[in-house]
Amino acid sequence: MRELLQNFEERNLEVVREALSQYKDSEIADEIVRLDLIEQAVLFRLLAKDGAMSVFEKLAPADQANLLNALRADEVNDIIEELDPDDRARLFDEVPAGVAVRLLEGVSAKEKFATTTLLGYAPQSAGRIMTPQFVSIRENLTAAQAMKKVRNAGISAETIYILYVVDTTRRLLGTLSLKDLVLATPNKKIESIATKTNLIVAHTDEDQEDVARRLADNDLLAIPVVDREDRLVGIITHDDAFAILEQEETEDVSKIGGANPIDRPYMAAGVLRIFRSRIGWLLILFVAATMTGSVMKLFEESLEAVIALTFFIPLLIGTGGNAGSQTATTIVRAMAIKEVKTRDVLRVVWKEMRVGFLLGIAMATFAIFRAVTWGTGYEIALVVSLALLSVVILATFVGSVLPIAINKIGWDPAVVSAPFMTTLVDALGLLIYLSLATVILGL
Amino acid sequence: MRELLQNFEERNLEVVREALSQYKDSEIADEIVRLDLIEQAVLFRLLAKDGAMSVFEKLAPADQANLLNALRADEVNDIIEELDPDDRARLFDEVPAGVAVRLLEGVSAKEKFATTTLLGYAPQSAGRIMTPQFVSIRENLTAAQAMKKVRNAGISAETIYILYVVDTTRRLLGTLSLKDLVLATPNKKIESIATKTNLIVAHTDEDQEDVARRLADNDLLAIPVVDREDRLVGIITHDDAFAILEQEETEDVSKIGGANPIDRPYMAAGVLRIFRSRIGWLLILFVAATMTGSVMKLFEESLEAVIALTFFIPLLIGTGGNAGSQTATTIVRAMAIKEVKTRDVLRVVWKEMRVGFLLGIAMATFAIFRAVTWGTGYEIALVVSLALLSVVILATFVGSVLPIAINKIGWDPAVVSAPFMTTLVDALGLLIYLSLATVILGL
Repeated sequence: MRELLQNFEERNLEVVREALSQYKDSEIADEIVRLDLIEQAVLFRLLAKDGAMSVFEKLAPADQANLLNALRADEVNDIIEELDPDDRARLFDEVPAGVAVRLLEGVSAKEKFATTTLLGYAPQSAGRIMTPQFVSIRENLTAAQAMKKVRNAGISAETIYILYVVDTTRRLLGTLSLKDLVLATPNKKIESIATKTNLIVAHTDEDQEDVARRLADNDLLAIPVVDREDRLVGIITHDDAFAILEQEETEDVSKIGGANPIDRPYMAAGVLRIFRSRIGWLLILFVAATMTGSVMKLFEESLEAVIALTFFIPLLIGTGGNAGSQTATTIVRAMAIKEVKTRDVLRVVWKEMRVGFLLGIAMATFAIFRAVTWGTGYEIALVVSLALLSVVILATFVGSVLPIAINKIGWDPAVVSAPFMTTLVDALGLLIYLSLATVILGL
Repeated sequence: MRELLQNFEERNLEVVREALSQYKDSEIADEIVRLDLIEQAVLFRLLAKDGAMSVFEKLAPADQANLLNALRADEVNDIIEELDPDDRARLFDEVPAGVAVRLLEGVSAKEKFATTTLLGYAPQSAGRIMTPQFVSIRENLTAAQAMKKVRNAGISAETIYILYVVDTTRRLLGTLSLKDLVLATPNKKIESIATKTNLIVAHTDEDQEDVARRLADNDLLAIPVVDREDRLVGIITHDDAFAILEQEETEDVSKIGGANPIDRPYMAAGVLRIFRSRIGWLLILFVAATMTGSVMKLFEESLEAVIALTFFIPLLIGTGGNAGSQTATTIVRAMAIKEVKTRDVLRVVWKEMRVGFLLGIAMATFAIFRAVTWGTGYEIALVVSLALLSVVILATFVGSVLPIAINKIGWDPAVVSAPFMTTLVDALGLLIYLSLATVILGL
């Protein structure tokens, strides 16, 4: 993209526009955040009006807020007015309250109302991310009448492929796919073709991830959102659900890696922002890991007597950490996609203990073989392999119980997995290893 | 679900059916795999015909193959005939070749042809997972004529919301959303309302994950799949893309945790299958980790002279591992969602080195403070904090370069991250720490 701007400076405007039209909007959105702010504004102004909005909508909210800073007030007003209410609400979450109020001033009364309604719901709730732009119909219409309604209301709706059947108080009675409507004979009544049982809905105060997952699990194009009186107040479409799940999965991966999520694309995040996302956990884990030092200090005499014992320490705690990570990441992921629920805890632990026993036996056998061929004494080989067996079983136990327990008390299981659990397994593993050594070697 | 089957045994058939109808198909699919095979067959037969197919389609292919084993030949035939060609191809991937041939015998000629065509493409390719059930139209039709075509072809199509404009040789010329068709005046020509530039397409031999990601990034309902002559041969719909991305993300999380993916839901996987998915990496990492023992052996004399040096080893390599995991998981995820590309390697490394420097300084400062308040000697405090600084910078370097390099040579970057990288950082970190100690303490 930088080369394009080079051309711009040389006043080859047409060349730039022509070149830009070869890119897809999502590609331009990917690239624009890698430029500095002035370049972003220049590039953005070169886009055709429609394309510019489409690119803008594809940026992360933090990057949108950034770009607005580089644009003129009238350009900003146009963009804010054009945005869908849900996109606007997401953007306003990213800017200081004072700025949000100022931005909202330029917007028409109807759009302003739609946005402030969404902003009234809690962040990360279904209400906050839904769009009020859906097509609702009454059940006493005929198929032909409903089709006419779709044609009139369709342009501004987020989707016309699912229609929502409501009563006079806006209570949701059923859904009707445009497919069924198109395939129906024109004089059929809506009430006879709409789906009215086993409706899959979301509630305004539900967590956005749960709702997105429900939409995905049921292969829906959109999920209706109802308030506490069961009135239909909005819908969430498949592409927004997709974006939410992708973001939640990125956050989970960050947490599994032992860092807080950074709330914008990696390439656009600054060094200090990344630093802040990591230093907290690194320090917490460092402090927790000082336990391992204390455990070793307890066994100072044993270690001094047989220095060879220390050679196996990184190996042992490494294997414990690896076995624990394998379990914890599997369980965390299975819980994220709702395959494992809290009530499964006993079955999971029983399964993991058996897996851990098999893994432990395999590792211990291997370790004995290795130690003997290396010429380590039999006694140390025995200590190491017994310790390996115990550490691996311990690791699968902690790795399966910890995420489920943490989830039960309402925290996010992703944060405990790999590094946090490793620290726990490290300290307990050392305790087991050095105790075994002291007893078996008679130290 | 087990309680339901209890009722079944007591012949309260209506009670069971009524109770089952309260569950959504996706919930039944979740629960059925937790039962044993006989129970699965009993429960499956209790479902209404439509519901049974919908539940069957929601099972993982391995679980589908499993369930078929428990059903009668005529039931199996009915299911295979009813399945969409793409779902059938996915199922056939899971059964032995001989079984697949036998299953295919019961299927009508048309369905057989559709399925063998898909099976002709490589596993995990777009061609293998696409469905040939789309609606194609010619561009010389009017909107009204196209609408008629949709009504005729619509029932058996996977989606009617995107129509594909093709020429006489089936080359893809453009796409038309049903929304634009419905909103167009009836006598408008298709060529004037279809989208014909910047078409987003997939090729039959592309990797399924890349295609699914492209669909998601562009907010599409379906993506057309063309062969080498640009002829339209199938489409992939948003729900299939969703399932692919979810599966790929589960696999990535497994790999980040240092295990091979298990190819079915966790609760349905047996102990031996889970064991096999983990033992390989655990052994490889164990062998790699024996390096750490060798490094320590090199410094045996230093360790014997100052046993307190060993107390800091788990702490140091733990911090190195944590810092490296933070970086590696971030980069692996950013590469998975195409935010970071191979050509970004220098920018990523430069960014990570600066982050690593800041993290290292923070950790070293903290460690000095901690060591001094603990009463460790100043010299050891100096050694530990210098080692921490180096290890953290090293870890961010390895954590950022390794995934990108591994990806460049065509392997999967997810497998190298956390545990593999930890092992490398452990050995190098020990080398740095013990070298520093030997020099500074004059051992």
